[in-house]
Amino acid sequence: MKKTIGILGGMGPMATADLFQKITALTDAAGDNGHIRVYIDSNASIPDRTAAILEGGEDPVPAMADALRHLELCGADCVVMPCNTAHYFLPRLEPLTKLPFLSMIEAAAEACRTRFPGKTVGILATTGTLSAGLYQEALAAAGVPFLVPDAGEREALMEVIYQGVKAGAPPSQYREAFCSVTEGMMNRGTACFLLACTELPLAVRELGLDLPCVDPTEELAKAAIRFCGYGVREK
Amino acid sequence: MKKTIGILGGMGPMATADLFQKITALTDAAGDNGHIRVYIDSNASIPDRTAAILEGGEDPVPAMADALRHLELCGADCVVMPCNTAHYFLPRLEPLTKLPFLSMIEAAAEACRTRFPGKTVGILATTGTLSAGLYQEALAAAGVPFLVPDAGEREALMEVIYQGVKAGAPPSQYREAFCSVTEGMMNRGTACFLLACTELPLAVRELGLDLPCVDPTEELAKAAIRFCGYGVREK
Repeated sequence: MKKTIGILGGMGPMATADLFQKITALTDAAGDNGHIRVYIDSNASIPDRTAAILEGGEDPVPAMADALRHLELCGADCVVMPCNTAHYFLPRLEPLTKLPFLSMIEAAAEACRTRFPGKTVGILATTGTLSAGLYQEALAAAGVPFLVPDAGEREALMEVIYQGVKAGAPPSQYREAFCSVTEGMMNRGTACFLLACTELPLAVRELGLDLPCVDPTEELAKAAIRFCGYGVREK
Repeated sequence: MKKTIGILGGMGPMATADLFQKITALTDAAGDNGHIRVYIDSNASIPDRTAAILEGGEDPVPAMADALRHLELCGADCVVMPCNTAHYFLPRLEPLTKLPFLSMIEAAAEACRTRFPGKTVGILATTGTLSAGLYQEALAAAGVPFLVPDAGEREALMEVIYQGVKAGAPPSQYREAFCSVTEGMMNRGTACFLLACTELPLAVRELGLDLPCVDPTEELAKAAIRFCGYGVREK
């Protein structure tokens, strides 16, 4: 009996749709019937994770626990969260359910280790994700050397993410800011980039850049497909 | 209290991801927290609807009823199905739940009536959907004049859908077949097209065609957004 996936989503909803689309596109299925059963609770009202971590905002764990109940009721065999920052709360969520979580952070760190062995990985993320240190810890644990953006680069990245991609601005408006970050980090020794914010794979695609990258959403999709006993489609 | 959406999905999974993406993109939300809570059961193992209708294949209703239970347990306020052919079974599904179904067929017929008043609508669909007569009935009930593809055009359309879009072929390989259908139907008086198969909006986009069209998935997304008490974003 093959397994099913529960997506604890809504953080945000577009990243949730993107993960679901990637699971579908990357499953090596001969036809519609060869796909994985996926349950999704996309609850956009889960309190902001970054605000909870950095500013003592409302705790998101109770709302996340409510969604976990729904995924259990449906019969999911595992839980995935298409939100980098939400993984900060994983140690508090795991005791609340018998379902195993597949970590997006660990899947992405493992992909860096195996796809770019010995290379220095540049972490591109929001200030919130960088402050939480999730990727720094996971890469260190996997023995992967890494670099983070400096203060000016963090500011430029926030501009790309918030005034650029999230605001639906044309790529020409954020090309210079984005390329100044990647060029600066490559000059300091970065060989590949970890796109640790769900808006960034979109930015790279819209800008038509040919950068060596790891997309955590894609790596999470692959990890979930394998956990369920299905094959991953080669691109 | 705003309402939530239950998606009875998996028929197929990519069309389900497309509906979820469209609901998110078309909701007039100021930020992530302004989005609708969406529950999805994407069960790709639901027996093939076309085979059940045309060839006496396995009945899909028990598997659809199982997914309905999950959406009820989660607390959905309505049910939507991103599969044209699945609507054939609506009269048998409605007595199985207290949740209201929002019909994709009715939403699309209503869009034809209001967006192209008095114009003749050309129904583009698989042979299965055309044989089930769902759109013919809905358009007739809405007082909308319509045309269906002739035998040769149906064959060309099936080729576009199965050997073209579903097979991931480059658009150049199905451009001629698709345009022969639309040009033939326009010559017989069609003023706009109802893209009554979830692969067809993709074909129109990939081919870069500027056809007057109604996309049922998009109309269903808008109907669901309004049902839940949210605003629809203007493009």
